[in-house]
Amino acid sequence: MNAPGPAIHATQPDQVFDWLDTEAANRAEAGLTRRLRPRGATSDELDLAGNDYLGLARDKRVAGAAAAATLRWGAGSTGSRLVTGSTELHSELEHELARFCGVQAALVFSSGFTANLGAVTALSGGESAIVTDKYIHASLIEGCRLSRADVAAVAHGDPSAVAHALATRRKARALVVTDSVFSVDGDLAPLGELSGVCREHGAALLVDDAHGFGVLGEGGRGAVHEAGLAGQPDVVTTVTLSKAFGAQGGAVLGPRRVIKHLVETARSFIFDTGLAPGSAAAALAALGVLRAEPDLPDKVLTAANGLAAGLREAGLRVSAPAGAVVSVRAPGAEDAKRWAEACAEQGIRVGCFRPPSVPDGVSRLRLTARADLAESDVDRAVKVIAELAPPRARSTP
Amino acid sequence: MNAPGPAIHATQPDQVFDWLDTEAANRAEAGLTRRLRPRGATSDELDLAGNDYLGLARDKRVAGAAAAATLRWGAGSTGSRLVTGSTELHSELEHELARFCGVQAALVFSSGFTANLGAVTALSGGESAIVTDKYIHASLIEGCRLSRADVAAVAHGDPSAVAHALATRRKARALVVTDSVFSVDGDLAPLGELSGVCREHGAALLVDDAHGFGVLGEGGRGAVHEAGLAGQPDVVTTVTLSKAFGAQGGAVLGPRRVIKHLVETARSFIFDTGLAPGSAAAALAALGVLRAEPDLPDKVLTAANGLAAGLREAGLRVSAPAGAVVSVRAPGAEDAKRWAEACAEQGIRVGCFRPPSVPDGVSRLRLTARADLAESDVDRAVKVIAELAPPRARSTP
Ligand SMILES: Cc1ncc(COP(=O)(O)O)c(C=O)c1O
Ligand SMILES: Cc1ncc(COP(=O)(O)O)c(C=O)c1O
Repeated sequence: MNAPGPAIHATQPDQVFDWLDTEAANRAEAGLTRRLRPRGATSDELDLAGNDYLGLARDKRVAGAAAAATLRWGAGSTGSRLVTGSTELHSELEHELARFCGVQAALVFSSGFTANLGAVTALSGGESAIVTDKYIHASLIEGCRLSRADVAAVAHGDPSAVAHALATRRKARALVVTDSVFSVDGDLAPLGELSGVCREHGAALLVDDAHGFGVLGEGGRGAVHEAGLAGQPDVVTTVTLSKAFGAQGGAVLGPRRVIKHLVETARSFIFDTGLAPGSAAAALAALGVLRAEPDLPDKVLTAANGLAAGLREAGLRVSAPAGAVVSVRAPGAEDAKRWAEACAEQGIRVGCFRPPSVPDGVSRLRLTARADLAESDVDRAVKVIAELAPPRARSTP
Repeated sequence: MNAPGPAIHATQPDQVFDWLDTEAANRAEAGLTRRLRPRGATSDELDLAGNDYLGLARDKRVAGAAAAATLRWGAGSTGSRLVTGSTELHSELEHELARFCGVQAALVFSSGFTANLGAVTALSGGESAIVTDKYIHASLIEGCRLSRADVAAVAHGDPSAVAHALATRRKARALVVTDSVFSVDGDLAPLGELSGVCREHGAALLVDDAHGFGVLGEGGRGAVHEAGLAGQPDVVTTVTLSKAFGAQGGAVLGPRRVIKHLVETARSFIFDTGLAPGSAAAALAALGVLRAEPDLPDKVLTAANGLAAGLREAGLRVSAPAGAVVSVRAPGAEDAKRWAEACAEQGIRVGCFRPPSVPDGVSRLRLTARADLAESDVDRAVKVIAELAPPRARSTP
């Protein structure tokens, strides 16, 4: 017997989206309203919210290369990478990324988001098990949902939980998926141990190095390189060109056969227009800056550690930053919002992460360090943030 | 009783991706190998493969605006649109897009792909039914898969099939999803009829106008505008900035409350870096060109109709183009590939669409018209393509 359908009310055209207003009212009541605050081209604010970790987005070498490439190649790539959207700029970038990171091959996507969708879906499928850290980035989660694989999300940063999930899986083929530096708290996944667990259980390892690339490892080669896993035949890395590289786009790095497979099967690669030539050129120029200034990444870590140490000394609950991201716990979502707004009034822009954008339900300020932060900037930021902390921020668990 | 897991062979690290080679061999055997063919900055080829319908990607006004904005705003937007990734350029573009298209509001994404993911998922959910044309674009299909909604994909271009699916749905809330101009055959969805069916059944209508925007409707305002549906309270449109607009990026257009809802809930918006400033500026400049030259879109249609008429006269099986896309049937995948390669040898670059990138399993050449094609270009293209047609192309069903 068929279950009867729900009664469908004869809705007027201007009522079909009424449910959006109800949801908006619910969000407002929970203090979770968000809105866009467009910024100007220049600002006196101290930016501790963006992901331009090396300060390259506005670097003349990077922006200049992007502008020149736009004039030479056009504003858009004009098609899918498989049709007209692959220029020699794209292949040069792929070649240089692979060489820099010590892997066989690389493939450039229009964003880190689509790179993650493509890598997760193309390297799994209905015949596969996927085991993920439960705090992975939303784009990886979307990839898992699209994959048709058996997906198990296990405890955060826990290789033994991964091992258990792999040992009890029902599919022979398996992929373990993790962030390197987690985007909310800035902590580092135990990559070496995860690789060991993968090898014991015949699984491949996919690492999203969005926040490690350009910041960690020798000369900014990333967390996977630092863990000694670059070039391994069973490891695939995704990176974004939109954070430390100051541009837009993403890439997958790994064995040549993985890259070939993505070209032929990743739907977010095949059915998407290629990255704009200007963005590809910007990323290439950023790579050149990193090669010329291999100490640049260390400056990010110095600034991040300075921020974390100062705020911890002021009694706040601060994460131990593995890279540029420093997270400070707030007592609640509304407190976090007010705290961030108060900082902005003092000229310091910080990120404010609240549910549902945090995997653990904990609201926090999210600060990002940059290579070009002066010590005086760090000191001022610590002072202002500590002074404006809500009363319960220091006792928050 | 638990089903026993599969035997897990103690795989060596260099064996975990062996299955990719097996799949590659299967694709090769089926004649479905794909590879990237990077192009140079200049070329003598006649390009009938790209989606730069108005010839704006390399237009000095567009590329120049992108270059200038990159120098002024930086190569990247540095963060999520909700953190530091919204510049005044983004809001100006959103404002102008909404005004041009006759809708209340617009929201810019990093690509048409992520715009589609965001619109479909945020406007449906577990409480919703989605009814789609079965030939919709891959990015919409991925959105449906992510949506948790009840999804029914019905016959192509068939409003009565949509009506039946809506009438028999089990969820009160419903969203009908379609391309305007379908990307493979270039045919137009019956938007007016679909809107009527939606209204009879209390459903919202989401139209992906990727190939109509800049080409169809008054001055290029798109297929939704042409159908008289722009600004309707129950209609949402997605567009891409990477085809007729010659840039990169995507946008969602619709009622203000829909855009507000996307800002607050669309995961492919929240968890993705904002569009690069240069690409936003390129799209703004393209909009300016369209306003200044409202006849530009007509030139695309003239060229497309010229191509289609000529090839049809030569006995080939040609689609009736609603916009820029002209599709010519091939007897099979290998024939299509050889045909396209032979055209390339004669200096004419055409698209070649084969399974699994075609919804109906039919391989074809896919030609795209451009506003800047001369009549002599059209004539030469028709001559070469007709001469090189494989024997069975004329009798192919
Ligand atoms: C861990 C992580 N992965 C992937 C992405 C997506 O990269 P993109 O913004 O380039 O799309 C982000 C941030 O946006 C991220 O933080
Ligand atoms: C119908 C349709 N929708 C969406 C897209 C995706 O847009 P974009 O390439 O800007 O990501 C495309 C093409 O790529 C398309 O053809």
